Amino acid sequence: MLVRGKNYTAVWMKGRSVCMIDQRLLPHQFKIITFKDSRGTAEAIRNMTVRGAGSIGAAAGFGAAQVALEAPENGFHAFCRTGFNILRKTRPTAQDLFYAIDRVAAVVAAAESVPAAKKAAVATAWAISDDYIRAGAAVGRYGNTLIKKGFRILTHCNAGWLALQDWGSALAPIYAAKRAGKKVFVYADETRPRLQGARLTAWELKEEGVDFAVIADNAAGFYMRKGWVDMVITGADRLAANGDAANKIGTYEKAVLAKENGIPFYIAAPVSTFDLQCKKGDDIPIEERDEDEVFYMDGKTKAGKIERVRVMPEGICAKNPAFDVTPARYITAIITDRGIVKPDKVRTLFSK
Amino acid sequence: MLVRGKNYTAVWMKGRSVCMIDQRLLPHQFKIITFKDSRGTAEAIRNMTVRGAGSIGAAAGFGAAQVALEAPENGFHAFCRTGFNILRKTRPTAQDLFYAIDRVAAVVAAAESVPAAKKAAVATAWAISDDYIRAGAAVGRYGNTLIKKGFRILTHCNAGWLALQDWGSALAPIYAAKRAGKKVFVYADETRPRLQGARLTAWELKEEGVDFAVIADNAAGFYMRKGWVDMVITGADRLAANGDAANKIGTYEKAVLAKENGIPFYIAAPVSTFDLQCKKGDDIPIEERDEDEVFYMDGKTKAGKIERVRVMPEGICAKNPAFDVTPARYITAIITDRGIVKPDKVRTLFSK
Repeated sequence: MLVRGKNYTAVWMKGRSVCMIDQRLLPHQFKIITFKDSRGTAEAIRNMTVRGAGSIGAAAGFGAAQVALEAPENGFHAFCRTGFNILRKTRPTAQDLFYAIDRVAAVVAAAESVPAAKKAAVATAWAISDDYIRAGAAVGRYGNTLIKKGFRILTHCNAGWLALQDWGSALAPIYAAKRAGKKVFVYADETRPRLQGARLTAWELKEEGVDFAVIADNAAGFYMRKGWVDMVITGADRLAANGDAANKIGTYEKAVLAKENGIPFYIAAPVSTFDLQCKKGDDIPIEERDEDEVFYMDGKTKAGKIERVRVMPEGICAKNPAFDVTPARYITAIITDRGIVKPDKVRTLFSK
Repeated sequence: MLVRGKNYTAVWMKGRSVCMIDQRLLPHQFKIITFKDSRGTAEAIRNMTVRGAGSIGAAAGFGAAQVALEAPENGFHAFCRTGFNILRKTRPTAQDLFYAIDRVAAVVAAAESVPAAKKAAVATAWAISDDYIRAGAAVGRYGNTLIKKGFRILTHCNAGWLALQDWGSALAPIYAAKRAGKKVFVYADETRPRLQGARLTAWELKEEGVDFAVIADNAAGFYMRKGWVDMVITGADRLAANGDAANKIGTYEKAVLAKENGIPFYIAAPVSTFDLQCKKGDDIPIEERDEDEVFYMDGKTKAGKIERVRVMPEGICAKNPAFDVTPARYITAIITDRGIVKPDKVRTLFSK
């Protein structure tokens, strides 16, 4: 998508380096950060310099290509396995991480020579990135058919283009609707603890010229009960075979409230986010992140300086589960790059 | 309650001045702030230097006494009416505000002379404060009967002693259980946008030595679905005759999630918080506060300085409803200073 007139994806490769928008600094600073080796890329995934299902996948694909490029002739495959495993350990819940690493690992394993493996790894990483871009556009096209003129749409966290290389998952239908001339209004949940809604979704919607208001996560139910929300769309970090969805903490709360208020609740995700090995959502591992994410907040002072401040007392405990599972019964349908399916029809996406 | 070994209430009167703990600065600073006139006290209620149903009531009572003390012999009653109305316009949702002002206004109107009116106003303000202290203790005694050893209790916002002069409403049963030797664990919702859970409830629980963890508001549903929450207790800012409860934004979300997960959901409030004139919750006016409360966060820098930082982009909109209404059907029971009642039995509290 365009940033100040220039086209960007969330992450890309340049020579042997992986470049990405530093999403920790947005919206206050728009900065590109470059990692010369795969360990740097792995750490960037772990510390959420890059985040969001598809962007994690794209970064992991490029990181895996770096691993192959770094590997010596001698012991090439052992080196690659170690490097891939370091990448695999960065974010336990994100299905696209495993999807992308597995795709690169498969071509590396199948290659007839080390130089061919390196070439195939880089080509596959780019193919993964291209697939996300196409997938986001397709999710947008399908999702747009659900949006009527004047719809007020609630979204949680950021599942926009920053989270899926381009277009996005949850925001792609909104962008498609906007570009098709439909006026929509978005309630952007701020999404504590990391405020991706307020920092990233708000930034994206503002850049794209979509009408919206940021609301405290606590206020979503208030607007739903008032009848002011026509639909809810969120992304997903992993979908189980039965249609249960793991997504950013708080998604489950919004899904229950949508059902209680008779509002359709959609998950938007490319097929790469499905994990058919997981029979149900409770099989999905849930990442618990550092309690400092709850204690501290980054922001801009009046003097224009970025500061980290502690917003609660010292010497206390916090719990910080990064994701929750929304059972399929709360999900009206899943908007994918292969069409819209009911959660109990997930397998039909893969039987074609 | 004790702060560094000294006993405090949230607000009190000293001569003609109203003194209060500045709750905007907690937990980083414990500071007493003094208002020499009723306009200062009114502004302190409006800008949430003092907040929480009962503490607003106590402050409004003392503020109304200040009005009477400030009023001249000539035009005494007109002056008082104007002053009371300024106080009444500070927080539209808080029932205790109106309750306290009406109590002082009634004795002022009934007094036989101006000096008698002034004396009665001050005495009534102190009586209101004493009533809150007794009410909190009674809510604690009744609520404690619902708490079993080892209970894990979720609370939202701050309805502790800072919010009700002493003891509190939602936290009073927890304090009573703790002092009765029952081990309990509290999940303290952080409660965006003003983080009263993380700032005030965490501070109170820490001072009192109760085990707890702060969680993002988004994580409450996660722990409820896991089966790790045995009960939910929150306060209220106004209760309608049918048992609907207005309380801090997000309370409705937690109540729906509690019901969905089969967890009892209690509102704790003294009878002064009931407004029998309001037939149902949707008749309660909901305060919409400044969007800056969503945009900015106060905290302590590494260097120990208190800074206000902007945590989201410039040039965007936010919506900031301060309260929501939880319909009675989600409320298991209401814990009051006159006993525990089902929401459809509210009127029995007043028929004795």
